[in-house]
Amino acid sequence: MTNGAALAPVLAHIDATLDQSLDRLLALLRMRSISTDPAFTEDCDRTADWMVDALAELGFSAEKHPTTGHPMVVANTPDGAGLHVLFYGHYDVQPVDPIDLWDRDPFDPAVEDTAAGKVIRGRGAADDKGQLMTFVEACRAWKAVHGTLPINVSMFFEGEEESGSPSLVPYMKEHASALKADLALICDTGMFDPQTPAITTALRGLAKLELVITGPNKDLHSGMFGGAAMNPARVLTRILADLHDETGAVTLDGFYDGVPELSNAQRDQWEGLGFDADAFLQNVGLRLPAGEQGRTALEMIWSRPTCEINGMTSGYTGAGFKTVLPSQAMAKVSFRLVGTQDPDAILNAFKAHIQARMPADCTFELMEPEGAPATVMPIDHPAFEAARAALSDEWPKPAAFIGCGGSIPIAGYFQTILGMDSILIGFGRDDDQIHSPNEKYDLESFHKGIRSWVRVLDGLSRV
Amino acid sequence: MTNGAALAPVLAHIDATLDQSLDRLLALLRMRSISTDPAFTEDCDRTADWMVDALAELGFSAEKHPTTGHPMVVANTPDGAGLHVLFYGHYDVQPVDPIDLWDRDPFDPAVEDTAAGKVIRGRGAADDKGQLMTFVEACRAWKAVHGTLPINVSMFFEGEEESGSPSLVPYMKEHASALKADLALICDTGMFDPQTPAITTALRGLAKLELVITGPNKDLHSGMFGGAAMNPARVLTRILADLHDETGAVTLDGFYDGVPELSNAQRDQWEGLGFDADAFLQNVGLRLPAGEQGRTALEMIWSRPTCEINGMTSGYTGAGFKTVLPSQAMAKVSFRLVGTQDPDAILNAFKAHIQARMPADCTFELMEPEGAPATVMPIDHPAFEAARAALSDEWPKPAAFIGCGGSIPIAGYFQTILGMDSILIGFGRDDDQIHSPNEKYDLESFHKGIRSWVRVLDGLSRV
Repeated sequence: MTNGAALAPVLAHIDATLDQSLDRLLALLRMRSISTDPAFTEDCDRTADWMVDALAELGFSAEKHPTTGHPMVVANTPDGAGLHVLFYGHYDVQPVDPIDLWDRDPFDPAVEDTAAGKVIRGRGAADDKGQLMTFVEACRAWKAVHGTLPINVSMFFEGEEESGSPSLVPYMKEHASALKADLALICDTGMFDPQTPAITTALRGLAKLELVITGPNKDLHSGMFGGAAMNPARVLTRILADLHDETGAVTLDGFYDGVPELSNAQRDQWEGLGFDADAFLQNVGLRLPAGEQGRTALEMIWSRPTCEINGMTSGYTGAGFKTVLPSQAMAKVSFRLVGTQDPDAILNAFKAHIQARMPADCTFELMEPEGAPATVMPIDHPAFEAARAALSDEWPKPAAFIGCGGSIPIAGYFQTILGMDSILIGFGRDDDQIHSPNEKYDLESFHKGIRSWVRVLDGLSRV
Repeated sequence: MTNGAALAPVLAHIDATLDQSLDRLLALLRMRSISTDPAFTEDCDRTADWMVDALAELGFSAEKHPTTGHPMVVANTPDGAGLHVLFYGHYDVQPVDPIDLWDRDPFDPAVEDTAAGKVIRGRGAADDKGQLMTFVEACRAWKAVHGTLPINVSMFFEGEEESGSPSLVPYMKEHASALKADLALICDTGMFDPQTPAITTALRGLAKLELVITGPNKDLHSGMFGGAAMNPARVLTRILADLHDETGAVTLDGFYDGVPELSNAQRDQWEGLGFDADAFLQNVGLRLPAGEQGRTALEMIWSRPTCEINGMTSGYTGAGFKTVLPSQAMAKVSFRLVGTQDPDAILNAFKAHIQARMPADCTFELMEPEGAPATVMPIDHPAFEAARAALSDEWPKPAAFIGCGGSIPIAGYFQTILGMDSILIGFGRDDDQIHSPNEKYDLESFHKGIRSWVRVLDGLSRV
């Protein structure tokens, strides 16, 4: 059931008041809420105040809660009924450097005409201010027309998402009962393509560590010692090269424990998306999928676990040549996890893999080992189908349940700390340049994003 | 014939004026002649001027000759007679990084008291400023006492030894007749141990290159692309790990072509030196020889070829973690060569090894490939025995003919371009930390080094 009697006037109101919605977003985009740089601490605080004021204006009881970092904003509306959802977003943004690559002041946002249509240009336009405002404006429109929302809505905004969310878990644990709802809604992901909306239902987990191997107690002259003294770079390359076999599979003991095979239904749905693997790789200068043999590129990035070297260094890396035999060699390695893969078990298997290749007179250290499991949403819950139907009504093509190669830790925390699943819906596009110069959010993303959320609210009211 | 009438007063003069000799060396060590870094080009030029002035003060006709890189310094003394020797050294030094591991400013040298005696601490103290100054100061002392040197001496200093000597071969070819002498003397090697002086008669050659592999055309997000996009660091580690087999042997096709087995005589002489392989490795924090199984540590460093990773880097190597999938991966690799191993053939075999492991959509570049073969001296020439007797008179134990793990390409060029053999005598010690932080040269090396050279000059005057 969609396009109920309640919906049509709200959609009309959104279309009629889009300019005012846009003005509010531009005001928010002007605020310099760069969370990672202490120079902008006050800006972050003022942005939290702005959010509180905006939500209070909508009739929410909104509060700013201090943390040891940037404040949380929490808001409830007394007038909802039925299903209770917690909407999450983040009001902080990425730094703007390299500033000279921007075509405009990142904090002087504007709507620009481009060959591909109108875009809202500025830092945070897509990540995450533009996205979170689609939901806030949807609530505003519904309340303007009907006075009360069709379901019970709370909102939760943090200001540290772009700097590792140090306060998030402690805050969630302390305020668990206040935050707990039936379901979370998160708007920090993208469309499958500009015609096809998406609900991200599988997020890969992450296990990572830094490995430092020490051989000689100082850098040596490779002429004087080469051949006799063990070179830690040689030890490191053996360890790293042995992480994959010749078919592209990861060799760690038990690595694939807990990795599910795709269901036929899911496989069929993904094949129906018409993902262009060639274009995906060509766009970054490649043409051969590098993962496990016999898997599609979409499986490789959405449903298969990976192992990547994110960084490594040893010896002399400057200009010219130094025939040094290095004392140390370092690598940063991460694993993307799926299904029920256990991050601790995988870090332990990696440690055993390292130990098995370590000469008796070399030593190694594992720095900052850390892991979070994958998150998989229960797509058979009726709310997911209701949301999918609502999105399908708004956009040219039906909405898809998709995977996501990256990790969105908040969705995992909602599950593990609050026992609450999340519906991840977002209207970002691949070319939004989030985290990069000239970030933008299509005006269509904003406009149809607001319209999408009122449809979702309407749909969820009948779950 | 040693300790002739001419010798004793010169030795006494050296002892009486050691402090002045030391002051001159410290002045030279203060000059920042890092040849590999363009920021120090002017410092190199000023250092060449300093050398010219110092030699002119000794009565040499000294000249600075420009090259496309750093200048050459060439000096002749008109007053010599008999045997004509060309003394070679280099006035440039290694970079000083990692600077935070130095206990003093590398260019503010001083004599320090240590448990093992007085040392001269600073970049270049041993390699090669301290060493070359032993010869310059020996000539100064001889001339101060006798007015003229006992043999005909020319000197030749370059400023690019630590950066691959790009100007050396063209310069030597152009000035071959001016440089040609009966014999070269080179002071850039070490003692066998602190009691046992050495003449290095077998030098390993060197082949080297820098390999840069490009995968994606920019750094990627490992969540978005990990698994599907080839990681060039993974390609690089496979290439590097495959360079050695499990017995420590190098796997390149034809790598051991031209590698001679030791003669029984040479093996006996080396065994007689009582080389303490355990102590050699323990001194640098290791205990297991890393080279080919079944070879002694002395063979590994003097008579066997090697392959070492001198540096490598890829992706994010700073503090913390960035889950980047790097666009590029780089390694600097060098091979030490012996016997008649052909550097070009080995670089070509390495290239084939790389190509065989390169995915079709990655590219690679080989930067600055360069090679010089090993060098072996004719130790039956009477000058070698005269030098050995002279050294044996100065030090507690008799001098030895030894091998050298490092490469001193100049000795090969003197043979191939000028048809001139070299007597390589040096007073460095294994713990001098050349190319590393806290480089030092023992005051005894400097003092007895000067004394050694006047004995050698005296000895050569009777060959």
